[in-house]
Amino acid sequence: MNYRMIFSTVGKVALIEAGLLLLPLLTAVIYGEWWVVASFGITIAVALAIYLVCKVLFKPKSGIIFSKEGLVTVSLAWIIMSLIGCLPFIISGEIPDFADALFETVSGFTTTGASVLTDVEKLSHGSLFWRSFTHWIGGMGVLVFVMAVTKKDTDRSIHILRAEMPGPTVDKLVPRAKDTAKILYLIYVVLTAVLIILLICGKMPVFDSIVHAFGTAGTGGFGIKNSSIAGYNNYCQWVIAIFMFIFGINFNLYYLILLGKFKDVLKSGELWAYFAIVGVSVVVVTLNILSMCNGFGEALRLSAFQVTSIISTSGFSTANFDLWPSLSKGILFTLMFIGGCAGSTAGGFKVSRIVLVGKNIRRELRRSLHPRNTSVIKFNGKRVDESTINGVNGYLAIYVVCIAVITLLLSIEPFNLETNFSATVACFNNVGPGFSLVGPSANYSIYSPFSKILLSLAMLLGRLEIYPILLTLLPKTWIKK
Amino acid sequence: MNYRMIFSTVGKVALIEAGLLLLPLLTAVIYGEWWVVASFGITIAVALAIYLVCKVLFKPKSGIIFSKEGLVTVSLAWIIMSLIGCLPFIISGEIPDFADALFETVSGFTTTGASVLTDVEKLSHGSLFWRSFTHWIGGMGVLVFVMAVTKKDTDRSIHILRAEMPGPTVDKLVPRAKDTAKILYLIYVVLTAVLIILLICGKMPVFDSIVHAFGTAGTGGFGIKNSSIAGYNNYCQWVIAIFMFIFGINFNLYYLILLGKFKDVLKSGELWAYFAIVGVSVVVVTLNILSMCNGFGEALRLSAFQVTSIISTSGFSTANFDLWPSLSKGILFTLMFIGGCAGSTAGGFKVSRIVLVGKNIRRELRRSLHPRNTSVIKFNGKRVDESTINGVNGYLAIYVVCIAVITLLLSIEPFNLETNFSATVACFNNVGPGFSLVGPSANYSIYSPFSKILLSLAMLLGRLEIYPILLTLLPKTWIKK
Repeated sequence: MNYRMIFSTVGKVALIEAGLLLLPLLTAVIYGEWWVVASFGITIAVALAIYLVCKVLFKPKSGIIFSKEGLVTVSLAWIIMSLIGCLPFIISGEIPDFADALFETVSGFTTTGASVLTDVEKLSHGSLFWRSFTHWIGGMGVLVFVMAVTKKDTDRSIHILRAEMPGPTVDKLVPRAKDTAKILYLIYVVLTAVLIILLICGKMPVFDSIVHAFGTAGTGGFGIKNSSIAGYNNYCQWVIAIFMFIFGINFNLYYLILLGKFKDVLKSGELWAYFAIVGVSVVVVTLNILSMCNGFGEALRLSAFQVTSIISTSGFSTANFDLWPSLSKGILFTLMFIGGCAGSTAGGFKVSRIVLVGKNIRRELRRSLHPRNTSVIKFNGKRVDESTINGVNGYLAIYVVCIAVITLLLSIEPFNLETNFSATVACFNNVGPGFSLVGPSANYSIYSPFSKILLSLAMLLGRLEIYPILLTLLPKTWIKK
Repeated sequence: MNYRMIFSTVGKVALIEAGLLLLPLLTAVIYGEWWVVASFGITIAVALAIYLVCKVLFKPKSGIIFSKEGLVTVSLAWIIMSLIGCLPFIISGEIPDFADALFETVSGFTTTGASVLTDVEKLSHGSLFWRSFTHWIGGMGVLVFVMAVTKKDTDRSIHILRAEMPGPTVDKLVPRAKDTAKILYLIYVVLTAVLIILLICGKMPVFDSIVHAFGTAGTGGFGIKNSSIAGYNNYCQWVIAIFMFIFGINFNLYYLILLGKFKDVLKSGELWAYFAIVGVSVVVVTLNILSMCNGFGEALRLSAFQVTSIISTSGFSTANFDLWPSLSKGILFTLMFIGGCAGSTAGGFKVSRIVLVGKNIRRELRRSLHPRNTSVIKFNGKRVDESTINGVNGYLAIYVVCIAVITLLLSIEPFNLETNFSATVACFNNVGPGFSLVGPSANYSIYSPFSKILLSLAMLLGRLEIYPILLTLLPKTWIKK
């Protein structure tokens, strides 16, 4: 285990975070929120101190890392990021409780968007900015960012990329992992900028446009109004809905578009499945809620917004969908599990895994008819390895077990099954709002500090796709051979 | 596809059912319920007619069947059994609606025990006997019974045994499948007889003892009182709890005990896991409900009864566990998914699969630390094939997809998520009562005929472990090459 390399990278993450914290600090200065400026200043000092300690204590002797180090580095980086990131809320006194502040920060970085705040409008502009900015940072991944901005690049960086980017397979777009990271961030920045401009054109205030763009790009879901997006005009609601849909698509496809390889884009089985799931869901939900709305237009808008918001695991809302008919709630609940495409900023089980599980089930059925059948599974026009299929089924197993165990642990809380189960599902899949007592018009303040820490763990497990966090928690990982 | 052999076997099942229907007919005669006698008589005539039609139309040219025919035969046998079995209820007018009667009968044969009756005590003795007797028939499987009582035995009978007996692997106890079936039924009959005697000794009326023994042996759960088992004395409650536990254990182990191979019994990893799950659950639930009970003794009795009832997927109750604290409800809900051991009369995902999934997750975690690790998984002291592991993970995938799809279809009903989800889970895993509106003191009469048929399908899918039913529904299975 290359401890030095691990902690040296974690130190770098603290440095990067110190840099990123300058933006909310600047925001607080602009709005003259001096006590908030101070809290960001102190946090930056703490982050720099952590960086320096790591730099002095852990000078890497060798840059060689393996898959194991990649996984542990990513978990520790996310944990340290969250611990530093919650300090401004505590120091400024805006979220004084540690469990609350940690929950809110982890929820931010993991792009969950679950909140413990009963009145978000009371927060300072600096804190609101930081809250939404954590979504943007977490969306594409902070280590991918570190990789994109630092000079060094080793053959081994792919282990970091694999551990932080979601999906069953992570391919480098270009031979060097570092260049892949750069391209991904470039697409991310450009799309975010376009969204900000479109929202400003729609007469949304500049500050609101920026923070909502962060929340949309990271598929996070933190709003700055108690009514989430419901208070903005229809144009803005449609723009955000379309961009939630866009950020739920594999970024590799945008790179292919940039290269002009449109045919390859259309070959993506995952994209078609994503389109189909969203399309069918929007139609069914629209018809299902029609009688509750003022006409077809409103029903379509509310339905399209909520469906894209949930499948992209953003969690913004324009209606209290907890009051919708049970069929619509059932569809939204199912979408929470599915999530977006692999290689997007969305959470969930991922559409590509769903497609592979489906194709494998079909093959298994065929095999029980003809036991000697040895057909291969094709996906995105390519043959899929048996090891990938077994890996996806294995991931499903650990995914189900995690959700079951967390729901069971959460059931020490005296709430109904719908609340505890949907809270687990919404946090684990990085969606945000659940149903019943944690529905879109409620929040997670009802839970005890123990449960808030547990749900924070659930968010990290979901965002990093289980293995990195579990391995970091295993003593075996840390014992030298 | 050997159609002749399939329908000839289905015909035999109708004949066997005609024979089995003589018992409830006799019961109705004893109690002088003449209109019920008539309804059983008519049903027997219909069953015999079906047998004769099959015998005349489908004379098998060859006895050779493959896995495919085994799966289809089992599904069709269970469907025809249920269609014939619901006739007495309809004809006697005790459950006049077809969807209701079919739901009740499928619930009986699949040993689910979910009921649409609001007042079960109104039923005649004949119908009550038949209702519970279906549990006993379905528990060990009607085709296993056919195999045990008919003379012919081919090398291929194992395909039938595999398709009807639950669990990831089905081993013949002895070289001939026919003898295996005989041994299993012998153990089943003896255990049931012992239970009847013990209940009679506990001053339970003879009729009540017999029908409750059927419900316990089949791990079904149909009672004959509106309060299920709560009205009987503590001794009877403990006896039933212990026997629910016993019938949740792999019957192969009882055969090993008969052979005196006690060491082999103790080697069973599944047995230890089953003990551990039940033990821990009983302790936690007891402590959790202590404050609601009159002392530790009552808490332990209620807890032990409900835990064994749910994990064995029986579904009897001595308390309205829907009113218990959420931790206890969470544990019971988790147990619904787990179910009993493979090769028992219990439903659910099966303990052996849970153990294999757990062992595989542990190995996958190790593999992400050391990618070149090639350790094998051992279970019950034997090495487990990779194909078995992949098969179990594949089964988990199809299991999860089935529950998700059925829950989604059921959510067209205007009930809360807890009701619809727990109804699906309780039916699919053959438990019976769920939570909220389908809790132990409620019933399934709230559902529409469409949903009752859907839930009947869920019960069949769960009892026959998905593949047989799905394959029978696929047109591809029926098209000749």
